Amino acid sequence: MSKYDAYLEQHRATHVQQLLDFLRIPSVSALPRHKDDVRRAAQWAADHLRAIGVPKVEILETGGHPIVYGEWTVDANKPTYLIYGHFDVQPVDPEHLWENPPFEPVIKDGRIYARGAADDKGCLFLALKAVEAIAALDGKPPVNLKFMLEGEEEIGSPNLPAFLEREKERLRADAVLCADGGFYLPQKPDITIGSRGICAMQIDVQGPKGDLHSGAYGGAIQNPIHALAAILASMRSPEGKILVKGFYDGVRPLTDEERADIARVPFDEKEFFERVGVSEGFGEPGYSTLERLWARPTLEVNGIWGGFQGEGTKTVLPAEAHAKITCRLVPDQDPEQVLDAIEAHIRANTPPGVTVRITRFPGSAPAYLMSRDHPILAKAAQALREVYGEEPVFTRTGGTLPVAAMVKSILKTDFIFFSFGDPDNQVHAPNEFFRLESLDKGARAYVRLLLSLAAGN
Amino acid sequence: MSKYDAYLEQHRATHVQQLLDFLRIPSVSALPRHKDDVRRAAQWAADHLRAIGVPKVEILETGGHPIVYGEWTVDANKPTYLIYGHFDVQPVDPEHLWENPPFEPVIKDGRIYARGAADDKGCLFLALKAVEAIAALDGKPPVNLKFMLEGEEEIGSPNLPAFLEREKERLRADAVLCADGGFYLPQKPDITIGSRGICAMQIDVQGPKGDLHSGAYGGAIQNPIHALAAILASMRSPEGKILVKGFYDGVRPLTDEERADIARVPFDEKEFFERVGVSEGFGEPGYSTLERLWARPTLEVNGIWGGFQGEGTKTVLPAEAHAKITCRLVPDQDPEQVLDAIEAHIRANTPPGVTVRITRFPGSAPAYLMSRDHPILAKAAQALREVYGEEPVFTRTGGTLPVAAMVKSILKTDFIFFSFGDPDNQVHAPNEFFRLESLDKGARAYVRLLLSLAAGN
Repeated sequence: MSKYDAYLEQHRATHVQQLLDFLRIPSVSALPRHKDDVRRAAQWAADHLRAIGVPKVEILETGGHPIVYGEWTVDANKPTYLIYGHFDVQPVDPEHLWENPPFEPVIKDGRIYARGAADDKGCLFLALKAVEAIAALDGKPPVNLKFMLEGEEEIGSPNLPAFLEREKERLRADAVLCADGGFYLPQKPDITIGSRGICAMQIDVQGPKGDLHSGAYGGAIQNPIHALAAILASMRSPEGKILVKGFYDGVRPLTDEERADIARVPFDEKEFFERVGVSEGFGEPGYSTLERLWARPTLEVNGIWGGFQGEGTKTVLPAEAHAKITCRLVPDQDPEQVLDAIEAHIRANTPPGVTVRITRFPGSAPAYLMSRDHPILAKAAQALREVYGEEPVFTRTGGTLPVAAMVKSILKTDFIFFSFGDPDNQVHAPNEFFRLESLDKGARAYVRLLLSLAAGN
Repeated sequence: MSKYDAYLEQHRATHVQQLLDFLRIPSVSALPRHKDDVRRAAQWAADHLRAIGVPKVEILETGGHPIVYGEWTVDANKPTYLIYGHFDVQPVDPEHLWENPPFEPVIKDGRIYARGAADDKGCLFLALKAVEAIAALDGKPPVNLKFMLEGEEEIGSPNLPAFLEREKERLRADAVLCADGGFYLPQKPDITIGSRGICAMQIDVQGPKGDLHSGAYGGAIQNPIHALAAILASMRSPEGKILVKGFYDGVRPLTDEERADIARVPFDEKEFFERVGVSEGFGEPGYSTLERLWARPTLEVNGIWGGFQGEGTKTVLPAEAHAKITCRLVPDQDPEQVLDAIEAHIRANTPPGVTVRITRFPGSAPAYLMSRDHPILAKAAQALREVYGEEPVFTRTGGTLPVAAMVKSILKTDFIFFSFGDPDNQVHAPNEFFRLESLDKGARAYVRLLLSLAAGN
């Protein structure tokens, strides 16, 4: 056992109490009535940074909830790493499903139950504990460190892009270490190297100016629902390939190494389909289920509506039909170009007798993917290997992590997920919890990573 | 002017007052609170039949609102005609849009305004006035007459099929004259010879057992909305032909004579499309707009829904998608066989990864079409020609008239529309009205038709 591990073990009871204090602050960023609580959490985080020895700590305003910034420069010749996390949490409803009040943390069977226990107060806290352990024993961290702790992650970081632009200089770093996120399988170490991007639109199909009687008009007037169905169906082959011209433009082909990485991830396909209740998978031909989820783009209809939706039957030829679409994107698709391609496809495939209005939604984000050759990945893997005693795999997420793309595009800095949540942590749901084991192993892994970062490549 | 026309002119003021009395009865069959009013209207109609000389009149129970039956046998060697109409009316909402209270009839600019003025009290009443005129002057009608006046037409005649079965013998006639309906263009005489049938179903597509996150699952799980869109799109060619195998089975091809009949109908296509607000028509290739509306079957999506329908975007891969379909049918399609064909098509075209449940709705009805060679049509045309001074055309309706099909299938009797409503009468809407001119001309036409029916072919 290293001296750092010993330090962490020795102070564990104190550390857990500190985390419980942090969790007692109901810092729900989505709810205006918790505005002061979010600021209290910022204050707690700032105080805690100071307490573990960070010499320069500031609470910076963003126009929304504040950002806690910290800086610990030890040697201008050493690399600089910025640790990212967030101190805001999701709302707690439905509150009646919580077995214990969400902001009165309890420890049971080796788990801390509370809102934010995993996402992200626990995951963020363990990174700070690693810094504390090294600083306590060595007097200072082994590399220059910066901290950017956010209070708006759970509401989509609306003020972060402007903040990154404004504070670009101050935030300069060799890489960002993300202390938010987690493993693909509980307690099985992996490193997330990429996330898919997103773009969204709504299609409004207008036929006649009002609903018509299907007897008096049916057969001679285009039906907007049928027109919309034709448009949507034209976008995808029966096998699952997207037929929108230009949709796959810019998609970086999967390399053999990437496919091997994905194939190495333990994945029980049968269990996966059973869990969601489908008899079989469906997707783009030529790709495995995980490749479809992580490394291939999608065009998904999220909602559709038009005409009569009540009980029984109504003989109406409706005036309108509507659908919402989102795409998940992969490198190097450009969200706006994908929307352009879909719009052009819709224009080219709109049947006669209807008009189509297309509305693009804000919130587009490109995909994010680290180079697998980035030296930090080998160091992160080694740290996990040492702590978990097994070989970590490299994973991606099918979802979208806009912060990663923002950091990459504004700060021109790589964004490395080094985070210790588990997929069963009930984040965003009632009875969120975090394993004490994750706290221990995560802090020990962070110690190892920080030390190895100082060692150069 | 014939003596009958003179009689009608002489008694016109009295007749109008009688009709106003009839219209004051709020016989709304759909609303339980008007149950007694419907029965009062039945009583009024029965009394009126007696008053014009019908010797045998009965109010017959159906389990719902009653039916008024009348019989006037003059000579067992003469043919027998049954006059059909209804004394129930539609509800009046939205009542605030009525310029006068719906059950306080007013006469303005040659029109009677009231609920039921056209549909069907006015149209029914004028047939009775024709019988009255002939009976008053000749002592009896020129043919044997029966009357079947219904109180549930506006709620879909739910008890009529059982009634027709039960009273089959008593209702025996050479043909039924329908005093409900009207012209295709205001005050332009035509004879409706057919109506389309109907059948209806709902499609429920089930994907995963619950809504899924489009990032975590999108690309590897079939999307039920996309599956439904593919199913619906597969049912129709881009040009508008229905591609369901067997859908057109039994469809009687249009003869040259039928096409000529339809082509003879004055129809302003440009005005028709402008009125509903579409830039162009759309339908089965090879047919005119009126042919598509009257003489070709349709498969119409009446409603669709699934997933997220709110403001903005939600990254959901929904669990379900639903659609409602009705078909309008033509001779000799069988409604159940059409539903069988659609169901087989859906089964054959369901994409992998979803299951489909199909629900058939009650209320199927076959199309109805009279033989154009039926001798009564020439007589009806002659009556209209004499009264209106112009050549009547032969029309159909794209809607469904279940009573016609019921009478044909249960009583094995032809059902002839001889009715004088106008398409602008606002039936089923606020400010329903009936032209006094329609009352006059309709009664005179009925006199002529009844006299000519006595003359043999």
